[in-house]
Amino acid sequence: MLRPLVTLTTDFGTRDFYVAAMKAVLIGHCPDVRLIDVTHEVPRHDILCGSIALERAVDGFPPGSVHLAVVDPGVGTDRRILVTELNRQTIVCPDNGLITWAWRRLGPGTAHELVWRPSQSSTTFHGRDIMAPAAGMIAAGKPVAELARPLDQPILLDIRPCPDPARQGSVIHIDQFGNATTNILHDSVKKLGDPVVSVRGQTIGKLRRTYWDVMPGKGLALIGSSGLLEIAVRDGSAAEQLRIKVGDEVTL
Amino acid sequence: MLRPLVTLTTDFGTRDFYVAAMKAVLIGHCPDVRLIDVTHEVPRHDILCGSIALERAVDGFPPGSVHLAVVDPGVGTDRRILVTELNRQTIVCPDNGLITWAWRRLGPGTAHELVWRPSQSSTTFHGRDIMAPAAGMIAAGKPVAELARPLDQPILLDIRPCPDPARQGSVIHIDQFGNATTNILHDSVKKLGDPVVSVRGQTIGKLRRTYWDVMPGKGLALIGSSGLLEIAVRDGSAAEQLRIKVGDEVTL
Amino acid sequence: MLRPLVTLTTDFGTRDFYVAAMKAVLIGHCPDVRLIDVTHEVPRHDILCGSIALERAVDGFPPGSVHLAVVDPGVGTDRRILVTELNRQTIVCPDNGLITWAWRRLGPGTAHELVWRPSQSSTTFHGRDIMAPAAGMIAAGKPVAELARPLDQPILLDIRPCPDPARQGSVIHIDQFGNATTNILHDSVKKLGDPVVSVRGQTIGKLRRTYWDVMPGKGLALIGSSGLLEIAVRDGSAAEQLRIKVGDEVTL
Repeated sequence: MLRPLVTLTTDFGTRDFYVAAMKAVLIGHCPDVRLIDVTHEVPRHDILCGSIALERAVDGFPPGSVHLAVVDPGVGTDRRILVTELNRQTIVCPDNGLITWAWRRLGPGTAHELVWRPSQSSTTFHGRDIMAPAAGMIAAGKPVAELARPLDQPILLDIRPCPDPARQGSVIHIDQFGNATTNILHDSVKKLGDPVVSVRGQTIGKLRRTYWDVMPGKGLALIGSSGLLEIAVRDGSAAEQLRIKVGDEVTL
Repeated sequence: MLRPLVTLTTDFGTRDFYVAAMKAVLIGHCPDVRLIDVTHEVPRHDILCGSIALERAVDGFPPGSVHLAVVDPGVGTDRRILVTELNRQTIVCPDNGLITWAWRRLGPGTAHELVWRPSQSSTTFHGRDIMAPAAGMIAAGKPVAELARPLDQPILLDIRPCPDPARQGSVIHIDQFGNATTNILHDSVKKLGDPVVSVRGQTIGKLRRTYWDVMPGKGLALIGSSGLLEIAVRDGSAAEQLRIKVGDEVTL
Repeated sequence: MLRPLVTLTTDFGTRDFYVAAMKAVLIGHCPDVRLIDVTHEVPRHDILCGSIALERAVDGFPPGSVHLAVVDPGVGTDRRILVTELNRQTIVCPDNGLITWAWRRLGPGTAHELVWRPSQSSTTFHGRDIMAPAAGMIAAGKPVAELARPLDQPILLDIRPCPDPARQGSVIHIDQFGNATTNILHDSVKKLGDPVVSVRGQTIGKLRRTYWDVMPGKGLALIGSSGLLEIAVRDGSAAEQLRIKVGDEVTL
């Protein structure tokens, strides 16, 4: 029996007490919990960016893990709170699209609406007051059905892995080194043989195996560590040098 | 019996080894300890800011927790080191005012001066050499009385929760989103009925329940997650847009 | 028997999933492992800077600790992966000089080349795919000899503690407060009596005991918390104010 594990993905930053406030609540509900920070530097209210990080967590951690993700511009409104079972793990997050990339890539899963509420709650910090207790209780073994009711479909952003084989996709994420991740799967590229990759009309070239296959400062396309086509610049930033941003078109 | 827990609040940043150095010492003294970072991004030497974060930790964590807080511009001088018992928790920090907000809001507590000293110590890093061992020993169960002697009164900054009911208070903290926390308690606002909030002579308006009660980009007053009156801007920064800084006057 | 402990030192930053990806793998191989972040803010590809942080970790943590350090500009090439035993601890890192400062200051140690490889691996993230599993297996008790073969000598950067007694050394690290660490050992300074310290031709003065021995804004030389001569500015940044950078000459 593995020790209960909860990961945290938020846009709270690390300067204030907000992240530790959620951890205090998680420990209160599940004293033995192991806490792992995914990131707290999702740009404020950037649901798509948070969704990419969350999918990586759901892909990487072992079955039974619980993921608490809070990018929640609608806090204090009547937006729903989701409890999703997917890839043999459980995710607690607002129902605002944050589940999208995990749902599309590793799912679909089983969605529930959290109906449990605390006896009192702030109107500005449901991460601490509602979602952290729920995640803590689930990590401690409480069945999801005692806290939540089935839901047909979570809210999903209009982003999905490219249909296969893909001749056209888009940039879905820029990492902190300026590498551009696309929604084109490795398998999909392979089926096209040895295609030339272009982004925003700029030809990048054929797929490379490593950064070292080009000279420093040169752009390249390769399969990144998440199994998706990436555009990078060796020892540099593709985002800056090639002026790539999320949403840009990528063609094969 | 809960596992021993030590939180860390510092102005050390996260680029260098300083935080991990304290963790190594804590683990050495209390092998089973659970370590929780509150923040290491207190602005350098900003005792007031550190004091606000520390109070949140003392409020949020369960009884028996130990808090190690190091914002210590006087390291190497003969400033005292405090061990404070407050809210059924123990805080180890320099006696320079860092305890203020926890003492004023959750206390008063019982103050001691740490008299325990290691056989050798640097003159520049008492967080690692003196305070972390003390916190580790206390987390491991050593009685405070064996390490410290009673003290009448810790050094306290000139900041306190507003007298009740409050018609006038001040900004005590700006968080990383630019929300401005005041020293005015929720209860104190309620007693005044439905007052109009102003800051620096700018009228913000009556108390709102959530950010969504105003249009994006507009200022609002609401009760924040710490139970204090806050001034915010929906989807923006009150600090930037309303030019609010710590110390500014707030009137009701 | 201490709980297994793995520290992490990387240039991955904390905005993306990369650090958590390694932690997921470590937990998979060693469910009981305790994970401690040293830093993830080593400047990208700055092997020397990573080497300084790694040495601090190897110095500070207890015997039996495992250190995973990934600053790996050569990922995907045939650069070797090192497993080093040193100071009764084990370090897993690329063989690119990252081991240098620990090897020079706390060693020499025993070097091995990691020959274990996973059944599949990305070409861009050996931290997750090769080094984290190796560190996890070692933390779980697997003998190094089952994963790695002896190696004569790791690659070492051309940086070393000053010969003793030292009249001339250099700046090896600038911390985030702008303090400049040199490669001159405390003992070495003591043997010279009470020497005057200069950096880049600027006279700093004799060794001080604490920051408070000079006025705010003034430069000083003192022995830092790592036992090395440091150049600092009280309440300021020596790097900015004295224009010090890594590699600058220091004379006594």
